[in-house]
Amino acid sequence: MSDKFTLILFSGDYDKAMAAFTLANGAAGNHMDVTIFFTFWGVSLLRSRNQPRPNFLENLFKSMMPSGTRELGLSKMNFGGLGPKLMRKLITQKKGQTLDDLLAMAKERKIRFVACEASLKLLGIEPSELIDYEHLEVAGVDCFLNNAIESKVALFI
Amino acid sequence: MSDKFTLILFSGDYDKAMAAFTLANGAAGNHMDVTIFFTFWGVSLLRSRNQPRPNFLENLFKSMMPSGTRELGLSKMNFGGLGPKLMRKLITQKKGQTLDDLLAMAKERKIRFVACEASLKLLGIEPSELIDYEHLEVAGVDCFLNNAIESKVALFI
Amino acid sequence: MSDKFTLILFSGDYDKAMAAFTLANGAAGNHMDVTIFFTFWGVSLLRSRNQPRPNFLENLFKSMMPSGTRELGLSKMNFGGLGPKLMRKLITQKKGQTLDDLLAMAKERKIRFVACEASLKLLGIEPSELIDYEHLEVAGVDCFLNNAIESKVALFI
Repeated sequence: MSDKFTLILFSGDYDKAMAAFTLANGAAGNHMDVTIFFTFWGVSLLRSRNQPRPNFLENLFKSMMPSGTRELGLSKMNFGGLGPKLMRKLITQKKGQTLDDLLAMAKERKIRFVACEASLKLLGIEPSELIDYEHLEVAGVDCFLNNAIESKVALFI
Repeated sequence: MSDKFTLILFSGDYDKAMAAFTLANGAAGNHMDVTIFFTFWGVSLLRSRNQPRPNFLENLFKSMMPSGTRELGLSKMNFGGLGPKLMRKLITQKKGQTLDDLLAMAKERKIRFVACEASLKLLGIEPSELIDYEHLEVAGVDCFLNNAIESKVALFI
Repeated sequence: MSDKFTLILFSGDYDKAMAAFTLANGAAGNHMDVTIFFTFWGVSLLRSRNQPRPNFLENLFKSMMPSGTRELGLSKMNFGGLGPKLMRKLITQKKGQTLDDLLAMAKERKIRFVACEASLKLLGIEPSELIDYEHLEVAGVDCFLNNAIESKVALFI
């Protein structure tokens, strides 16, 4: 059985997500069994649609939360949202991989995605609002713990 | 002997503390031997009283540092301090657990708390200013390392 | 063979770097085999010179990125850059170790530094711009993964 590599992606920052997917893709490329748990702001990476909710507070957070890779900010030098655009431009100039490229590669490598059930509930995000990906599931903290315990490496990002 | 689960909580953010306690409580619920090391801004969670200090710089940082769960900010969308209030309101609406609930559960589950000695010294916080909890101790980095080495999972939050 | 301890330092914050080096030095002091991977903003700690680049975006990020320990900000209470100065002053008053002291100790203890190849390329930093240290090398994500897999403890900071 191949070694397990588990990430918990709490952050919704473009740069931290890049780091997470770079590590995850590298591990998968080395034939490790990789799982990424998306929790709290990290779930924004998995959002593809935005269904308005009856709850005002949910809508406040949801409307402020990024949806998909294009709306994420940088943890530093965000330049009021301009940072990620510049970063993407810089990456393209360098013939590097943007977060979209890294996400696409993660799917090619069949990396397992798990969206944190409690975070979805808290932020009022329906599973139907998440990206379409056959290896995406919704689960709770026990699912993360069971995976982490069996993993050679488990990181919180 | 049950598996060890160790967290180092560096952050003083409400949302990151929620993630830390959710993981810790889940691990304790699964009969793991859980320890949380509170270091740097993370020690604010353990503060219950604020004794003014003779040192100006200490008082500057101490007076700016949150004291207890009610004063923590969010790592994102803090809305100038309003964020955590909204988050608590949203959690309550969802019948979820606020950070206070999570902290209370961590105590019920007898999770071991360790406050970083160097952080307390640096920020001028006396052990007498920390919350009353029989499983709270003050120790240094070696204590963390010894625990982490024996742990199945160790995360920096 | 001694136990391995691996850190990935993604953050370029003064306080997080302090936490990383405190853990790394403690582990090295306990005869562990310690490696720190500096990635993304973390590479700023390794910069000693700044060679202007032909690329405008590179220069934008590079000129905004701190260079060396003296220019790092705090993740909290940065007070517009004043925070780290106050923190250093406070540390000195307390006869504690500043980040410079911690970095010097890490070198004395021959902790292995690895600068992330992709981060250097992305940010347009030449290996020649990094600090002079015989145990500093430039490598990619596989190097981190191989180390992390063999480590007793691996943390993302």
